[in-house]
Amino acid sequence: MTTKKKGSKERVKSMDQRLKQQLDFALELDKEKNIFRQTHLSGHGRNENDAEHAWHMALMAYVLREYSNEAVDISRVMLMCLLHDVVEIDAGDTYAYDEDALKTQHAREEAAKERIFSLLPDDQKEELTAVFDEFEANETPEAKYAHSMDNFQPLLLNHSNGGSDWREHGVYAEQVYGRQSKTKEGSEILFELTDRIIKEHIENGDLK
Amino acid sequence: MTTKKKGSKERVKSMDQRLKQQLDFALELDKEKNIFRQTHLSGHGRNENDAEHAWHMALMAYVLREYSNEAVDISRVMLMCLLHDVVEIDAGDTYAYDEDALKTQHAREEAAKERIFSLLPDDQKEELTAVFDEFEANETPEAKYAHSMDNFQPLLLNHSNGGSDWREHGVYAEQVYGRQSKTKEGSEILFELTDRIIKEHIENGDLK
Repeated sequence: MTTKKKGSKERVKSMDQRLKQQLDFALELDKEKNIFRQTHLSGHGRNENDAEHAWHMALMAYVLREYSNEAVDISRVMLMCLLHDVVEIDAGDTYAYDEDALKTQHAREEAAKERIFSLLPDDQKEELTAVFDEFEANETPEAKYAHSMDNFQPLLLNHSNGGSDWREHGVYAEQVYGRQSKTKEGSEILFELTDRIIKEHIENGDLK
Repeated sequence: MTTKKKGSKERVKSMDQRLKQQLDFALELDKEKNIFRQTHLSGHGRNENDAEHAWHMALMAYVLREYSNEAVDISRVMLMCLLHDVVEIDAGDTYAYDEDALKTQHAREEAAKERIFSLLPDDQKEELTAVFDEFEANETPEAKYAHSMDNFQPLLLNHSNGGSDWREHGVYAEQVYGRQSKTKEGSEILFELTDRIIKEHIENGDLK
C-alpha cells in the first residue's frame, strides 16, 4: 500500500511537470499576437498579426476544402495553419517580397522552432515539430493545400482593400506570381481566381 | 453536345456563385479581429480580440487534449473553438461578469448567427450552424471540453498578469467560480488547477 501511495504521488508529480511544460508552451504562444504582418485588415484596417492570420487561414481552409486538388485530412491542415507561424515569435515576420530578409529566414526560423517546441514535453515536441516540418516541406496534399491558404488569405484581404498592400511596397506582378504559384499546387481553382485577381490589379496599376 | 456545353457552363456558373458566397463569408470573418475582449495579453499587453482568443483556444485544446474528461474528436473541438465567437461580429463581446449585458446576449447572438451563416451556401450554413449550436448547448464531450478552453485560456492570461483583469472590474470570487464550474464538466484536472489559481488570487486580494 505504501508503494501504491508512492506510485500515485509520483504520477501526480510527473503529471504536474508535464502540465507545467504544456502551459509554458501555451503562454509562449500568446506572443504570436504581437507579431504584425504587412497585410492590412479589410476596410483599410490596421496591420494583421500572425495569430489572427492563422485563425483566419484555418477557418478558410475548412470552408474552402472542396477546392483542394487532392483529398486532405482537414484537421491536419487546420493544425498546420494554426501552427505554421509560431517560429515568428523569435524570427519575426519576413515580408514575402523582402529579398534580403528571405536569405536569413530559414536559419532564424530553425533556431526559433527548436527553442519554442522544446518548451513542450518530448512527445509533443516531436509531434508538433513534425506538423510544422510537414508544412515547410510542402510535399503532402495537406501541406500544399495549407500553403494555398497561406497565400490566398492575405490576397483576399489585400484585394478587398483595392491592392493597397502591393502599392505601398511597389511590388512587381512577377513577384506575386512567384509566390502564388504555390497556390496552384494546392488548389487549381483558387489559383484560377488568384490569377484573375492579379490581372485585375495589373490593369489598375496596383502592381508594377 | 450543345446540352453538354450548357451543362458545363451552368456548373461553372453555379460553382462561381458558391465560391462567391464562401468568400463573402471568409471576408466577413475578418471583422472578428476587431472585437476586443476584457482579457489582456500576457506581459500586461493590450486587450485581446476574439480571433486571437479563438486561435489560442484551438491550439491549447489540441495540446491539452489528454486532460479532457471524455475522449473527444479533437478536430471538431478545434472547429468549435475557432467558430464559437463569430456571432460577436454583430453582438459584440459580452463580459462574463456583466449581468445586464448577459440578459440580452442570447437574442443578440441568435440574430447574428442567422445573418452571418446565411452568407454561406445552404449546406455549409447548416453544417457550421450545427457546430456553433453544439458548442452553445454544451452537452457533448466536445462542447464541454471546448468550454473548458473558453474559460481556461483567459484565466491563464489573467493569471500571468497577476489577476489584473479581475482587479480592474472588481470581480467576486463567486462569480469566477460560477463561470469556471463549466471547466469541471470538460476537464476535472484543469478545474483542479483553476481552483488552485482562484484560491491564490483570493489570498492576494485580486478577487473580492
